[in-house]
Amino acid sequence: MNLEKIFEPKSVAIIGASEKSRKIGHVLVRNFFKSFEGDIYPVNPRYDKILGMKCFDTVKDISGDVDLAVIAIPAKAVPEVIEQCGEKGVKGSIIISGGFAEVGNKELQDEVKQIADKHNLPVIGPNCLGVMDTYSGVDTLFNPRYKMDRPRQGGISFVTQSGAVGAAVMDWAGYKGFGVSKFISYGNALNIDEVDLLDYLKEDETTNVICAYIEGTKRGKELIDKAKDVSCDKPIITIKAGTTEKGSRAVSSHTASLAGSKKVWEAAIKQSGMIKAKGIDEMFDYARAFAEQPLPEGNNVCIITNGGGFGVLETDYCIEHDLNVTEFEEKTKQQLRENFPDYAAVNNPLDLVGDANAERYRVALEACMQDDKVDSLISIILFQTTDLGSEVVEVISEINDKYDKPLIACSAGGEYSVLHMRLLEEAGVPTYNNLISAARSIAGLTYYEDFLNYPVSRPHEIRF
Amino acid sequence: MNLEKIFEPKSVAIIGASEKSRKIGHVLVRNFFKSFEGDIYPVNPRYDKILGMKCFDTVKDISGDVDLAVIAIPAKAVPEVIEQCGEKGVKGSIIISGGFAEVGNKELQDEVKQIADKHNLPVIGPNCLGVMDTYSGVDTLFNPRYKMDRPRQGGISFVTQSGAVGAAVMDWAGYKGFGVSKFISYGNALNIDEVDLLDYLKEDETTNVICAYIEGTKRGKELIDKAKDVSCDKPIITIKAGTTEKGSRAVSSHTASLAGSKKVWEAAIKQSGMIKAKGIDEMFDYARAFAEQPLPEGNNVCIITNGGGFGVLETDYCIEHDLNVTEFEEKTKQQLRENFPDYAAVNNPLDLVGDANAERYRVALEACMQDDKVDSLISIILFQTTDLGSEVVEVISEINDKYDKPLIACSAGGEYSVLHMRLLEEAGVPTYNNLISAARSIAGLTYYEDFLNYPVSRPHEIRF
Repeated sequence: MNLEKIFEPKSVAIIGASEKSRKIGHVLVRNFFKSFEGDIYPVNPRYDKILGMKCFDTVKDISGDVDLAVIAIPAKAVPEVIEQCGEKGVKGSIIISGGFAEVGNKELQDEVKQIADKHNLPVIGPNCLGVMDTYSGVDTLFNPRYKMDRPRQGGISFVTQSGAVGAAVMDWAGYKGFGVSKFISYGNALNIDEVDLLDYLKEDETTNVICAYIEGTKRGKELIDKAKDVSCDKPIITIKAGTTEKGSRAVSSHTASLAGSKKVWEAAIKQSGMIKAKGIDEMFDYARAFAEQPLPEGNNVCIITNGGGFGVLETDYCIEHDLNVTEFEEKTKQQLRENFPDYAAVNNPLDLVGDANAERYRVALEACMQDDKVDSLISIILFQTTDLGSEVVEVISEINDKYDKPLIACSAGGEYSVLHMRLLEEAGVPTYNNLISAARSIAGLTYYEDFLNYPVSRPHEIRF
Repeated sequence: MNLEKIFEPKSVAIIGASEKSRKIGHVLVRNFFKSFEGDIYPVNPRYDKILGMKCFDTVKDISGDVDLAVIAIPAKAVPEVIEQCGEKGVKGSIIISGGFAEVGNKELQDEVKQIADKHNLPVIGPNCLGVMDTYSGVDTLFNPRYKMDRPRQGGISFVTQSGAVGAAVMDWAGYKGFGVSKFISYGNALNIDEVDLLDYLKEDETTNVICAYIEGTKRGKELIDKAKDVSCDKPIITIKAGTTEKGSRAVSSHTASLAGSKKVWEAAIKQSGMIKAKGIDEMFDYARAFAEQPLPEGNNVCIITNGGGFGVLETDYCIEHDLNVTEFEEKTKQQLRENFPDYAAVNNPLDLVGDANAERYRVALEACMQDDKVDSLISIILFQTTDLGSEVVEVISEINDKYDKPLIACSAGGEYSVLHMRLLEEAGVPTYNNLISAARSIAGLTYYEDFLNYPVSRPHEIRF
């Protein structure tokens, strides 16, 4: 089925629209009003107008074309509405409503599926948060807006079987300044599941990395085949929940999926080139690097820091992630020695020492970018020192734009540091708040480059 | 040597005090002026007054007793000043100044050591950030204040060989609302090293958990013996930097310490009951739980959540950390069933579902606290939902005060969530922003309880 009109509709009908501010049907109208530039048609026989817009009795009463129908009405009324959508020629739908298979009401869900399939109508949901697309403005996230931020535009798309996980992650991504393309919470997967969504995102131009939170699948083999196909184009980072026996039991009471055994999943992940993340932080550690940075040519990393201890720790972490903390070329060493004070030793990790200013960072980054022995750079920046100011954000952003080698940043601290980390992140430099995240993000890029070079011949896995 | 007057002086002389606002000697006077209630004596022959206080030519010109001397003057002038401190009868000193062994000037350092030892004068440093004590108000952290927050009072003390690591960590701890007792950056360890500091902190009443960032030690055997002795009283959480060969080389160019092999350190950690942390986040994951919570009687954990997916993931993580996601007692199940809506299944993980409010959390927490099969509780709280408001912070704090079982919280999200997480943390409930941290903090408590029961008979290690 064609999902294009779900993500890029020109018009949307909101069925179950409401004037009451605490109702989901109200929040949905507001969301579209705020972010969507196409036509919005509220549908509810009880109202003539909602937020000043004409309100229709049914979707069939709308005179113009309707690309997308967003449905938030009691479960029992859904079959009739889906039938009306089919007759109207709606191209895609999102059923927010719960009350189907997840509470044992499988018959009702089957009835809806039959009608939707008959009309060739793709359905996201039911029982889901739906879709948010930062480019088209589609936004069905119905949580109160003051409690839930939205991320900026970017290249990460996130597919999730759990709505609550999705809401928390989007809120967090917005807060942190991470860039997102699409968010899809697909709930009970009526006639669109993770395999279809991977297929769609493969071709999606604004998506350059795919994240997936998966509890279980009904199409194991298709998922592996599709993942392998997509992985040769774009990286897929996967969290598999329910890998322990008790976790698996919790899955069946949560989404009624079959979790499958840990071994089967791990084999599937290795075969398909998907990148396994243990948790949500780790997933975004990788995703942000993929979304913003080129792939490295090899595993030779260079660590630049203004705090010696952080350089030592990061060296350990890089090596534990199969990265090589490389020697510099002779010309690099010479250049650094000429420009650095005597008390700053020229090694990798490169300690710019406590009185480093933005200019010293520039010299170091330029030299290391130009060093052929260096494949990727980790820039650790501690903002607590007297001599390092906001200028370093500009320096790092400029170097990042100028060269085609992966560069990430890492910092630690309180409000002053957090502000500057967010500025760096928004300037396109993935910025981590801990050293392990920074090391593994470079390891992720390196692993994936290796997979693309040898997709079939060997299994892959990131250690740690 | 007696370190009491370093941490709890009644009077302090700041040698190298300055009127110039960017000088370390100025920041030091300001810090003490802001947080210290005892007598402050600026010392510098160039000034009559500093910040309105009388300034003395030398420490010997001060008529009252001087418990602590904080020294920030050029390295070459330090021996004379230490001699004067000795003659004056100063009880402790902190030498901030660099320019000693770390830049190859070992002779000068030895000279200072000889004088200090002659006068039985304990010295923190040289080449360090010094000490911050949230109870006594001693505070020699000389980074610009607007860039560096201070933590609130609490039970965690942090000993670090690296000043930059320490500064970033304290700044971060302040921002996050973590409670700290003492911070000690001891630099070149003239006559006070990590062994002496552990010894002091063992008896310190406001310290209930010790964190240590260690690059190397000159007293391996004493460190292990002392750590074992202290561990039977208070938990010690250790990050060892330089565990890889290249990391170890980086250590020698950073603090000129000998890093020692990874195997030796790991054996030492197991023997001594110290808890190994891979990174700073992990160190504080454990530390916060130890500082605020009692030890559990066993490894039976209960997971409460309003997002099913997070419950599934946390189940996996707990099991991977050797915790048991326990069955409930019959009476608990009954109580929960009576109070919960039909669509909320009574299992562990206990999913309160998306419409849970604070009251539902109260019912769940009370029931699980009273369940004899439950040794510890993880409360996952997603604030994005419509029905869950700020009241849940009070509910959880109240339950935490009422019962003597370990309770921690975990949340994820943006600004609204971050605010509430900080409120929970400051109310004494360790609150984690990711599920793995939450699981391992409970694992840390459980591990340590086990160590206390069998300190000699078996080696211990936390997995993951």
